[in-house]
Amino acid sequence: MPSTSLHFSDRSSHRAWLASQAKLPAGFRVGSSRFDFVPQEAPKPAKMTLTLIALDKPTPDFAAVFTKNAFPGAPVIVGRKRLESENLGAIIINNKISNVCAPGGEAASESLCAEVGKLLGLKAEQVLPSSTGVIGWGLPIQAMKEALPRALTTLESGSILPAAEGIVTTDLYPKIRRFDLGKGSIVGIAKGAGMIEPNLATMLVYILTDIALPRSELRELLREVVTDSFNSISIDSDTSTSDTVVLISSGLVACEDREAFKRGLKQVCCDLAEDVVRNGEGVRHVIKVSVTRAKDHSFAHALGKTIVNAPLFKCAVAGNDANVGRLIQAIGKYVGASDQKTDLSKLEVRLGGITIFHGGVFQLDPLKEKALSSHLVGAELYQSAPPKDGVFTAAIDYPPHEKCVEITIDLGTGTEAATIFGGDLTHEYVSENADYRS
Amino acid sequence: MPSTSLHFSDRSSHRAWLASQAKLPAGFRVGSSRFDFVPQEAPKPAKMTLTLIALDKPTPDFAAVFTKNAFPGAPVIVGRKRLESENLGAIIINNKISNVCAPGGEAASESLCAEVGKLLGLKAEQVLPSSTGVIGWGLPIQAMKEALPRALTTLESGSILPAAEGIVTTDLYPKIRRFDLGKGSIVGIAKGAGMIEPNLATMLVYILTDIALPRSELRELLREVVTDSFNSISIDSDTSTSDTVVLISSGLVACEDREAFKRGLKQVCCDLAEDVVRNGEGVRHVIKVSVTRAKDHSFAHALGKTIVNAPLFKCAVAGNDANVGRLIQAIGKYVGASDQKTDLSKLEVRLGGITIFHGGVFQLDPLKEKALSSHLVGAELYQSAPPKDGVFTAAIDYPPHEKCVEITIDLGTGTEAATIFGGDLTHEYVSENADYRS
Repeated sequence: MPSTSLHFSDRSSHRAWLASQAKLPAGFRVGSSRFDFVPQEAPKPAKMTLTLIALDKPTPDFAAVFTKNAFPGAPVIVGRKRLESENLGAIIINNKISNVCAPGGEAASESLCAEVGKLLGLKAEQVLPSSTGVIGWGLPIQAMKEALPRALTTLESGSILPAAEGIVTTDLYPKIRRFDLGKGSIVGIAKGAGMIEPNLATMLVYILTDIALPRSELRELLREVVTDSFNSISIDSDTSTSDTVVLISSGLVACEDREAFKRGLKQVCCDLAEDVVRNGEGVRHVIKVSVTRAKDHSFAHALGKTIVNAPLFKCAVAGNDANVGRLIQAIGKYVGASDQKTDLSKLEVRLGGITIFHGGVFQLDPLKEKALSSHLVGAELYQSAPPKDGVFTAAIDYPPHEKCVEITIDLGTGTEAATIFGGDLTHEYVSENADYRS
Repeated sequence: MPSTSLHFSDRSSHRAWLASQAKLPAGFRVGSSRFDFVPQEAPKPAKMTLTLIALDKPTPDFAAVFTKNAFPGAPVIVGRKRLESENLGAIIINNKISNVCAPGGEAASESLCAEVGKLLGLKAEQVLPSSTGVIGWGLPIQAMKEALPRALTTLESGSILPAAEGIVTTDLYPKIRRFDLGKGSIVGIAKGAGMIEPNLATMLVYILTDIALPRSELRELLREVVTDSFNSISIDSDTSTSDTVVLISSGLVACEDREAFKRGLKQVCCDLAEDVVRNGEGVRHVIKVSVTRAKDHSFAHALGKTIVNAPLFKCAVAGNDANVGRLIQAIGKYVGASDQKTDLSKLEVRLGGITIFHGGVFQLDPLKEKALSSHLVGAELYQSAPPKDGVFTAAIDYPPHEKCVEITIDLGTGTEAATIFGGDLTHEYVSENADYRS
């Protein structure tokens, strides 16, 4: 992943930067509508935002990848069908309820698409639906249809920010990343903060471009770039039932450099993936694991995932405690369970650039312990504040810096590498998730 | 696993029960010695307990299984060699430092064994070493040798309780389980509270018996029973570098019924495994997952492990929130990542005996939500208390009841089954582990 450069002193400076990134590619408009409703399964008031992304003209050039969870949401099932549609004219997204395995969920999704189509002059199969939120509840379809006209009246072609804001749930802040290429651009937004260990894609990501590339190429490129971006992050090892990445081109600007487009697409995906981690539920430290000189890429990738998913090491990082024993434990756990013949004799492990393990033994002393602790303190996004009414909440709603807890696992036995991003395990994460629905 | 029946109103009634279970089998003595020392890697005072288990006469009849972690502790490496020893006369155990990948760690372990041997009239290879605690630090070998004579003078043949108490680290209470068989008995103790997803064995478990069975049979039986006991639990998905289960027979009572011995051994192992979970770090709910009617045992086992390791569901349980969407998500995550051809059409999922998913859709209503919440509240071991000085601590140091959050995953496609035990994810877990070393 590329290095990002995101350090803001407050919410308003972050918002100003987001606004500067938000110009829509040619050919797109976005709008949204927020409304109150009462879920039938747990009757107490709730709020939902409907977000609409519309093309000025339907396009055949779009790509999408979806979750591998065996219980995909109804919008994912419908979305897979849409890949066969001749062209696409709009995307309708709701938060609060993810429409997963709810009775009649697929019919509800289709009927919403039909309603959007009726208002925009499209067929239902030209509309892609997305939902995120509570798993198990059904969509309040009547209330959604009533809210749709208002989303239509807010459609505008200037900024993607209303969409980036409309799709969030527990996110701390909206996420927008762009890449300008000649007269065109690639602009992506992401929603995602928990239930994040994407398996083929992340929660909800929409990447819009006006640069013309045929459907087949867009699909090939998207498949290629998700491996090292959205599939290389994990906040909590849980794989959402709604993970969706959509790439859609209005085709209004000729593509003069396919390789540059690919680089730009990869950068937007990697930046958004890191954004998703940096604003992840309860994340106070972003952990970056670089596995280098591995025999093969899949081993490097899986080993990196094991580290960012190891609860004891994640807790130690949360406490700014350089308990590197837990890091070595996690490496040994993965190798012991996967392939015990792996050669670990050349393993060197560094934390914050400091060698802590080499030649089969730890390399520790009191001075190093201090330097390791300083590295952890330096990478903290914010200090944990005492709970209010028993609940820990994040002290920031903007990214204060781009620093990570930097871990290098140099296997010394090959030429493959992988970089994985994850977060620590904090009281803020537990508060968020022991309480989220209520 | 068998149902246990452990409900105590306070620490002293639990201690009285432990004492009633603690009678040593014939032919064994235990003793311990606690002392202060200063670790060289992080120079501030620490305490260590040395625990000694001695046989009146060395025995050839012993078995042991060890961690599969690729970085086993030095005592595990030495322990594997001891399996070749003609006979065994003593076990020496220390807490606080696990002696994993420390420079000169194996030599330190061997020199401690030699010292124990010198005092007891044994060779070093007749002494089995065990260590648990911080990973990365080296043993304070001189201080340990100085403390040994005191452990020797406390050796006594009445109760195993001093050993059960001596081996703990973050455990809330000592763990002893027994099975009486004719004139003999099987008595086990366990240490373990965190870094617990054993891969072949759990943290430290010592099972003593006076019932005579040859070494080969003991080893076969131990291998058989660990699968459904220690290998069927997970507190935090981390696999310790020190996991060790030792079974040792003084051979003083003739074995009249091999099958009864196996049943007894299995019961002691299953009961200790559940004890380890019930007093696990930060565990406020024990989660019991029964996967039934599966095609094969390994699938059922791995699916159950996925549920007890799914952070979002574990957090929901901690908050007494029956967020069953996260449970279905976890099932789908496992099947999606492992074998997407798995037939899930007959899946029925029950929580606390209440069907929440069947026929591919959720079966929820407001009344059920209430009943599900009540089940979670009823299984809570203790209520979370507000943190003191920012630290959440367990409100109990005894098991108040034997209840579990009961989950049944009925696949309806086969005849195999597995039962897995785990815990919720709580503020108490984060406090314990963001702070443990300091």
